[in-house]
Amino acid sequence: MGVRPESVRIREMAPRDGLQIENEWIPTERKVELIDALSQTGVHGMQYTSFVPAKWVPQFKDADEVAARIKRNPAVKYIGLIPNIKGLDRAVAAGVDEISLPAAATESFARKNLNRSVAECIETVSEVVKAAPDGLVVSCALSVSFGCPYEGLVPAARVVEICERLGEIGVGVITLADTTGMGNPDLVAQIVSGVRQRCAGVPIAVHVHNTRGAGLANALAALQEGVELFDGSVGGLGGCPYAPRATGNIATEDLVNMLHGMGVKTGVDLEALVVCAQLAEKIVGKSLPGQVMRAGIWPPR
Amino acid sequence: MGVRPESVRIREMAPRDGLQIENEWIPTERKVELIDALSQTGVHGMQYTSFVPAKWVPQFKDADEVAARIKRNPAVKYIGLIPNIKGLDRAVAAGVDEISLPAAATESFARKNLNRSVAECIETVSEVVKAAPDGLVVSCALSVSFGCPYEGLVPAARVVEICERLGEIGVGVITLADTTGMGNPDLVAQIVSGVRQRCAGVPIAVHVHNTRGAGLANALAALQEGVELFDGSVGGLGGCPYAPRATGNIATEDLVNMLHGMGVKTGVDLEALVVCAQLAEKIVGKSLPGQVMRAGIWPPR
Repeated sequence: MGVRPESVRIREMAPRDGLQIENEWIPTERKVELIDALSQTGVHGMQYTSFVPAKWVPQFKDADEVAARIKRNPAVKYIGLIPNIKGLDRAVAAGVDEISLPAAATESFARKNLNRSVAECIETVSEVVKAAPDGLVVSCALSVSFGCPYEGLVPAARVVEICERLGEIGVGVITLADTTGMGNPDLVAQIVSGVRQRCAGVPIAVHVHNTRGAGLANALAALQEGVELFDGSVGGLGGCPYAPRATGNIATEDLVNMLHGMGVKTGVDLEALVVCAQLAEKIVGKSLPGQVMRAGIWPPR
Repeated sequence: MGVRPESVRIREMAPRDGLQIENEWIPTERKVELIDALSQTGVHGMQYTSFVPAKWVPQFKDADEVAARIKRNPAVKYIGLIPNIKGLDRAVAAGVDEISLPAAATESFARKNLNRSVAECIETVSEVVKAAPDGLVVSCALSVSFGCPYEGLVPAARVVEICERLGEIGVGVITLADTTGMGNPDLVAQIVSGVRQRCAGVPIAVHVHNTRGAGLANALAALQEGVELFDGSVGGLGGCPYAPRATGNIATEDLVNMLHGMGVKTGVDLEALVVCAQLAEKIVGKSLPGQVMRAGIWPPR
């Protein structure tokens, strides 16, 4: 085990990862409302939109308008997703603080979801790192780091190797993503430990899903290994395309409630986050899997 | 931290704790069907019914008939709940392998839910231990061990003190129950560690709820402290009377799936358990919060 941090930073995924799976069109003003509410909660960063072409993800065809209309909070890192270097200028023009590029830990997932090989994903990230203006953080989210719906178990050594390469090309943050909730606490600890040892100096974020119910247990394992940067989606917004009736992202407020109970500081106003989770439910018009918004925060501040 | 066990035993709560909260009457034959299916999954024990008077819990007015109609599997401990010594003869006549008596870690909870003081709960348990026939295990489930909806934080020293007393009077198993999901991994570790130190020789079970999403994280913390006996309810059957829209018990199959992923042996056939979770959904006629039954077991055997 590593050294458990006394405080961590939280990144909010609902406006992008959460809404991406919604088939129904979410009006621009509702997106702006959610982003602006989230920006006042004390989260460190937020994936607020995607600059992927509208033909691929129509939900974000209004990305530029969203970016123009939100009330920017200078304390929050606004993270925009881009698929490749073509999205860079548009994201920079929109005023992102950080660029997130996708990659994957397996060839099958990279091929089927990103239409290129793992090596090509890394090459794309490298291009963007080189082309990015000074001061712009370029991060990479590594899908299926803890298991792949096509290939099954992913060798830890493979994940470590990819992360080492990402570190070498100058990525600002590496996010280890449990895209379909296939991780378990031991596997998370093993991979996080390996990556942290070999990528000293590169911040590692952990992005776990609750698809098999172990989301917070996996986050706990990462915390025990020393991870200081965690993703969540308010309400648990966002499902799992590989298991239509299962959940996706862990609910940010459930994660923060657990961390606060353990005395781990997040800087997040949990009451405000619960209000955002309720807003997310209203926006998508359905019940979300987050629990704390129903049961109440415990312990109180 | 304690020494993490290589194998644990699982107790199934769905037929009693799970069904108790259902307002709708579940026909005797459906109860028998669920119990018989669960008895073939490899669980160590099962709370299969309650011998509490029907005027208090009408759902179990058929307890004797249920007990008479099930196909007993000699490998399974059939645990019957009784409220006090008056239920003992009935439970023994029904053929229980183990008696479970309730107690609580706070006076308010004991008073409001059990209509007596904590000391009176312990006295009741003591009476039953003395009166029980040779070979009958008498166990005690200590409600609100990790937080009380009336009193809030429960001092760890208080829980340890009550458990020590329960150990002295000869209880066979002490179950630390997070009745309303107020625990967090640190609190669970702290209390479990304290109780295990002071009650050496008495098996400790941990019964966590997922009311705030941290159920499996709390189970993980207990496992890391060396706990070898865990409760769950298939599908997560059973809600939380204190938070009507929140979940109650952790889903047994989600717990077992996580444990198997970590290489912790349970002796449980996870495929068979998932079938039981689906049966539980059918019996109560609604969707249950368990995740693995939707997303699929991972990793496979």
